[in-house]
Amino acid sequence: MTDRPRAFIVVTGSELVRGDRPDLNGPFIAAELLQLGIEPARISIVGDAEAELVEALAEGLRADLCVVSGGLGPTHDDRTVELVARALGAGLRLDEDLHVEIGAISRAFAERLGRPYVDFEAGVLKQATIPDGALSLGLAGTAPGLVLDRGESVVVVLPGPPPELQRLWRSALETAPVQRVLSRARPPGFRKLRFFGASESAVAKALADAGGDGDGVEATICARDFEIHVDLVVAPGADQRADELTEGIVAPLERYLFSRSEQPVEEIVLELCRAGGLTLATAESCTGGMVAERITSVPGSSDVFLGAVVAYADEVKGRELGVPADILERHGAVSAETATAMVVGVRERLGADVAVSVTGIAGPGGGTEAKPVGLVYLHAAGPGGARSADFVLPGDRGTIRHRAAVTALHLVRRLLQQSRDAAA
Amino acid sequence: MTDRPRAFIVVTGSELVRGDRPDLNGPFIAAELLQLGIEPARISIVGDAEAELVEALAEGLRADLCVVSGGLGPTHDDRTVELVARALGAGLRLDEDLHVEIGAISRAFAERLGRPYVDFEAGVLKQATIPDGALSLGLAGTAPGLVLDRGESVVVVLPGPPPELQRLWRSALETAPVQRVLSRARPPGFRKLRFFGASESAVAKALADAGGDGDGVEATICARDFEIHVDLVVAPGADQRADELTEGIVAPLERYLFSRSEQPVEEIVLELCRAGGLTLATAESCTGGMVAERITSVPGSSDVFLGAVVAYADEVKGRELGVPADILERHGAVSAETATAMVVGVRERLGADVAVSVTGIAGPGGGTEAKPVGLVYLHAAGPGGARSADFVLPGDRGTIRHRAAVTALHLVRRLLQQSRDAAA
Repeated sequence: MTDRPRAFIVVTGSELVRGDRPDLNGPFIAAELLQLGIEPARISIVGDAEAELVEALAEGLRADLCVVSGGLGPTHDDRTVELVARALGAGLRLDEDLHVEIGAISRAFAERLGRPYVDFEAGVLKQATIPDGALSLGLAGTAPGLVLDRGESVVVVLPGPPPELQRLWRSALETAPVQRVLSRARPPGFRKLRFFGASESAVAKALADAGGDGDGVEATICARDFEIHVDLVVAPGADQRADELTEGIVAPLERYLFSRSEQPVEEIVLELCRAGGLTLATAESCTGGMVAERITSVPGSSDVFLGAVVAYADEVKGRELGVPADILERHGAVSAETATAMVVGVRERLGADVAVSVTGIAGPGGGTEAKPVGLVYLHAAGPGGARSADFVLPGDRGTIRHRAAVTALHLVRRLLQQSRDAAA
Repeated sequence: MTDRPRAFIVVTGSELVRGDRPDLNGPFIAAELLQLGIEPARISIVGDAEAELVEALAEGLRADLCVVSGGLGPTHDDRTVELVARALGAGLRLDEDLHVEIGAISRAFAERLGRPYVDFEAGVLKQATIPDGALSLGLAGTAPGLVLDRGESVVVVLPGPPPELQRLWRSALETAPVQRVLSRARPPGFRKLRFFGASESAVAKALADAGGDGDGVEATICARDFEIHVDLVVAPGADQRADELTEGIVAPLERYLFSRSEQPVEEIVLELCRAGGLTLATAESCTGGMVAERITSVPGSSDVFLGAVVAYADEVKGRELGVPADILERHGAVSAETATAMVVGVRERLGADVAVSVTGIAGPGGGTEAKPVGLVYLHAAGPGGARSADFVLPGDRGTIRHRAAVTALHLVRRLLQQSRDAAA
């Protein structure tokens, strides 16, 4: 697979190289390139210091394609265009069309702010000045995206804000220089396997026992909140090997496999409800609404999902979910009995066909020897039956809550699949 | 500030360079370095291809400190140690202490899995083999973290899993070679300003009008879900300039300033409730539990937060929150009247002193000309009064929901501050 064209991604931003927040542009471009059959060889994140940016760009130019994000703004700190030109040995010129276009936007903006246009003039001239031979991809705000063709390597310059970057990336793909690089790419195939409940080492063993990767198939195994994601990247011609490997991995782990696509579990749950004509609700304690939040993140979830009761305080578990006082007293709020009563309550109160509950101790405080931090009880019930589960989940408060929410979604998925399969 | 020691961070992982998920180790190490007075000059993300990793390491060795994460596992793909040794021109040697220690862990593991130890032996030898002169930082799983001292540059090798990386990073800071680099660092000061409701350009203007950065103060302005975060990094000796700049930025924007620290709004809301002896609840529609989820992400929130009703379906708004049918009919579920009735209902049902509600159209479907996608109504009420707000929020479904949740938290913060100030 090393004959794929190689790409370097150079991401600029002081706040990114200083760790204020994770960069999302690099992963977006990398995933796009991989799909297209171009190998994302490196993501370099640099600030606005000239020396660092110059060095990263010089390295980027050694790849077949170099995608640069950020540093296109109107201020003196935004030096990407100037430094790309210098790295390519290209001169800079004022593009008259861009000058008119950016000038008009800035004039309107100045008027709206009640500030004189002269305040913006230097920025307009700067943003309308581009390297000789550069193609404009259109504007993001007042900054043009650019494509530069240097024969053996092509440079794409994109703005930093992710929605703008993504929009102009689409335009870049249409240009002749990028198309030329793409014509040498052979898009790989993909196989995706998603497991829940299997350990990472069990999946790694299944992969090894099935022959491991190689021979045109590259495998990555990635653990996320108790799900194990296996992704195969398949070179052209290696489809049969990929299919054999896929089935070899699945065979010993079939009961844990929940998807052969990237579809997240909340979408699967919604589809299973929709197929059965069932409405859904959640009753949550330690997850604080996270299960409902994940379900409602899916567009169109309102045809299935009725709502949730987040019963954080015990009196709310009693008052809003009808959990009997003697259950809370005898078994405690974190117990299988309370989890069951929460589901009974939320189904009745909200009139939902199917419901799932979570109650647990997310920590860091509140644990005891008998009921340690991480202990979580879950229950799901619907017309076809019920399922329960309990775990002591490892990790910090955030991890425990995430894992509990994911586990709740999988519990209700299994319940719905079991009901569907029983009915079939 | 260019006399700070420079650091390069090299992150290895095929899944990271291919964009499967954002890297979190680079930002963690970068933020740590910045605090310590070391300039994080670059974060390079590479896969496990030898040529790419060798090149990234060679560049990293030109910095005063090079921190490498990942690639320490037992398999042939995990080549960080071997390639670091080669880049440094160091030989490799089997460390007998490590051999014994890793062997014991692997023996126990093999026993638990019911597999022969011989399956693990090659991995044990590999992980116990380290460059000449390397200091072990202790094990993460079966992999040692390492520090290598080359005089003008120091290399720290850490495991990929973030909790392990963070733990061994603490150990690396205690070693003599890293201490020597730190002795040349002069930790900067920091100023943090957090605004809500001001535009990014208004904050940029305030910064410029106050004299802009420079003279030992570097400023970054970052917009996140309607909050504007201003961070100043202050060189030793520039404190007075930083204080003047800070107050210059705050002066025209005082009413939008909500924090001079990194404390998130949900923590401020909980503290305000606690100070007033008030309990809190939420009633959510389009945010689907996200406001409750953010509040309960804070450890100890259970002394204030009672719970939430996520009323996604209209019948739940009526049944569980007592929103009158004629309000839903006349004004619709997305209306100021419904938002108000949701707060009235949740305060009464859950017995909460203070509550906030959100109802809106998160899209992509469901918008009309009169009520477009992004339209959100919010209401907050407590013993001290009430506040309402409505917006048409830009962005996609996820962005609209995030912004609506953040706006809800700020609405209830303002209500609580107003009540507190009126009582004072």
